Amino acid sequence: MARIVMKFGGTSVADCERIERAADKVAAEVARGNEVAVVVSAMSGVTNKLVNYCSEISPLYDAREYDTVVSSGEQVTAGLMAIALQKRGVSARSWLGWQVPIVTSNVHGKARIEEINTEEMEKRFAEQEVAVLAGFQGISERSRIATLGRGGSDTTAVALAAALNAERCDIYTDVNGVYTTDPRIEKGARKIDRISYEEMLELASLGTKVLQVRSVEMAYKRDVPIQVLSSFEDKIGSDLPGTLVTREEDIMEQHIVNGIAFAKDEAKVTLFNVPDVPGVAAKVFGPLADSSVNVDMIVQNVSEDGQVTDMTFTVPEGELQKAIDILAGQEDLKDVKIRTDKEVVKVSVVGIGMRSHAGVAQTMFSALAEKGVSIHVISTSEIKISVLIAKDYLELAVRALHEAYGLDQS
Amino acid sequence: MARIVMKFGGTSVADCERIERAADKVAAEVARGNEVAVVVSAMSGVTNKLVNYCSEISPLYDAREYDTVVSSGEQVTAGLMAIALQKRGVSARSWLGWQVPIVTSNVHGKARIEEINTEEMEKRFAEQEVAVLAGFQGISERSRIATLGRGGSDTTAVALAAALNAERCDIYTDVNGVYTTDPRIEKGARKIDRISYEEMLELASLGTKVLQVRSVEMAYKRDVPIQVLSSFEDKIGSDLPGTLVTREEDIMEQHIVNGIAFAKDEAKVTLFNVPDVPGVAAKVFGPLADSSVNVDMIVQNVSEDGQVTDMTFTVPEGELQKAIDILAGQEDLKDVKIRTDKEVVKVSVVGIGMRSHAGVAQTMFSALAEKGVSIHVISTSEIKISVLIAKDYLELAVRALHEAYGLDQS
Repeated sequence: MARIVMKFGGTSVADCERIERAADKVAAEVARGNEVAVVVSAMSGVTNKLVNYCSEISPLYDAREYDTVVSSGEQVTAGLMAIALQKRGVSARSWLGWQVPIVTSNVHGKARIEEINTEEMEKRFAEQEVAVLAGFQGISERSRIATLGRGGSDTTAVALAAALNAERCDIYTDVNGVYTTDPRIEKGARKIDRISYEEMLELASLGTKVLQVRSVEMAYKRDVPIQVLSSFEDKIGSDLPGTLVTREEDIMEQHIVNGIAFAKDEAKVTLFNVPDVPGVAAKVFGPLADSSVNVDMIVQNVSEDGQVTDMTFTVPEGELQKAIDILAGQEDLKDVKIRTDKEVVKVSVVGIGMRSHAGVAQTMFSALAEKGVSIHVISTSEIKISVLIAKDYLELAVRALHEAYGLDQS
Repeated sequence: MARIVMKFGGTSVADCERIERAADKVAAEVARGNEVAVVVSAMSGVTNKLVNYCSEISPLYDAREYDTVVSSGEQVTAGLMAIALQKRGVSARSWLGWQVPIVTSNVHGKARIEEINTEEMEKRFAEQEVAVLAGFQGISERSRIATLGRGGSDTTAVALAAALNAERCDIYTDVNGVYTTDPRIEKGARKIDRISYEEMLELASLGTKVLQVRSVEMAYKRDVPIQVLSSFEDKIGSDLPGTLVTREEDIMEQHIVNGIAFAKDEAKVTLFNVPDVPGVAAKVFGPLADSSVNVDMIVQNVSEDGQVTDMTFTVPEGELQKAIDILAGQEDLKDVKIRTDKEVVKVSVVGIGMRSHAGVAQTMFSALAEKGVSIHVISTSEIKISVLIAKDYLELAVRALHEAYGLDQS
């Protein structure tokens, strides 16, 4: 017997028929003798619709009221899932955030889970009752509903798994696992059976959309194995058909590079004629940070004359205009010329094996050079190397790297 | 300064634009210096959709889960209304049933309100904050959401008005008041300015759909004046543009008959060859009552031979088959022949003035006879007379009665 948390995303509960198929999977896990808690998202499309209602009435909405409105989507699917389970002879009840309670911080709209009281749920596990939780929501002080930010149901699932000391958190979604890269670009992309928390965290941060970054962080910190698997295949989590995100020590076969991620919504900003004096970087990036512009890759050239230099960095495409406005308003930077480029993409290779292997970066640079792909900016961390290249070369670069690291061989 | 409850039905909050128009009315009442609590229904169509989800998965759904699902519609509009009010500079917050709390009985799906704790709301009135309540919902023991049955938001509004000792409960809807009869049938139908609780209760019970019967009962018992008015006209409740349902003593001008109601979903059942022995009525109606079949008008003919008689009564059309099956299964009634007729309609005239005026029934019978309308069954109470007639004569009968009682003269 194991205790597991099963999380179903929006496409897995998109309508009544899919809710029933998800309930079949839950019933199958229960039939194996497992103790099961289920976390559900809203039906796909519903959260967007609710968010739009709020924005339509007032773009400056009160986040507490926003939370009241948007949390209703998960409430609906939780109740329906409980009904679908009961229909299958599985004892079940729905739990809303305030009923558990899942206590959160007061930052409405992107609250953090502070505590999950599982006392009553534990009692009911003993009576073979399945708990069905509405994802994405909790209760802040003064008894207001608080939501965890978009994609927050993954975080609910992992936090619940941690609180329940569950063996595993199965995230049912519309893909059957994490791939070495996007199979729509590289047909030879291979499903990864096991990957470490750290690698998954990098991949999620670098643009692989399968899991919400915060949920991976939490899984890493609390050591909750996550399995990513498909709700549209005829397999259940206990057979481990998906990708298991787990501790490095639990992975037998290590690859040097485990995955290739890319992010298309990057924009490059180059500043020319920047005074080459100490503290100028703070003058550039301080105001951006103050306005919550997310600066990513940064390169500062060596100054030739010791007077002026140039500087390049990336920001999310959606924050580009804001960044330009902020920089243009700085008195200290009034002689600086700004050039921007949205036609770029960040490609990253990720692998824990990099730590102990030399030449990983060299392989990347050679493979790209061989295909004539110029690198604009490079940034590295202990287990990843990212390069910024022209958007047109995305597919070419991904395929070249996938081959260069031998990722298509299982 | 007055304290008022404003309730907006589904068509009055059908989309963001209508929510904003409703918020305009609330802001106008606040600007008059009134203390305001708002009760909202779900956007029109939403509750039906949610009910259908439950039924699609399992017609035998758990009523507690059904309540979790269907209560979400009012949650959405409550949050949106609070946002719309804040946008207008009106301090406001939404309240869900469990937050107030509105404590209900445990009969999920049609719970009754047992208590409303208005302590916190009273405090916030002192700070000029408008309370926006999600209608239709409360919290039962063990912290589960409970709903009040279809149309329950009217009941929430009246119960809240009673708990807050409000001066008036304004029910904003898609008509501008209660009419002497349905204006789609009789063009001369006149809006009634004031009507007594008792008359409104009869009209609501007899098929006039403007107010939920339970909400009128509660208003009567707790003496909460209700005003029915349109959310699509440019007037607010404080100008009393609608129909005020209030105490008999508060109505200056009394009409003998105040309104004509009709109900189309009636079916007539006639039993022939019924043994004319004491207790036979109990044998017929006992089993029907046991199965919750709602028997309405009953007529038993005088027996000619003292052996057998016949009996006629009405049931809602939707319960007809159930009634037939039950009667056919009774051993004591095995020789009885059953004949049914769905092509009937019940037309009723209602008026408190009947109590002190003779000849009211006679006016009805003559007016119908004059038009050649046969009466199948008659039933009377202190303030109403109902007749069952063939469906084809509905319009003719309503118009004839409207004229006979002079209802088109204001």
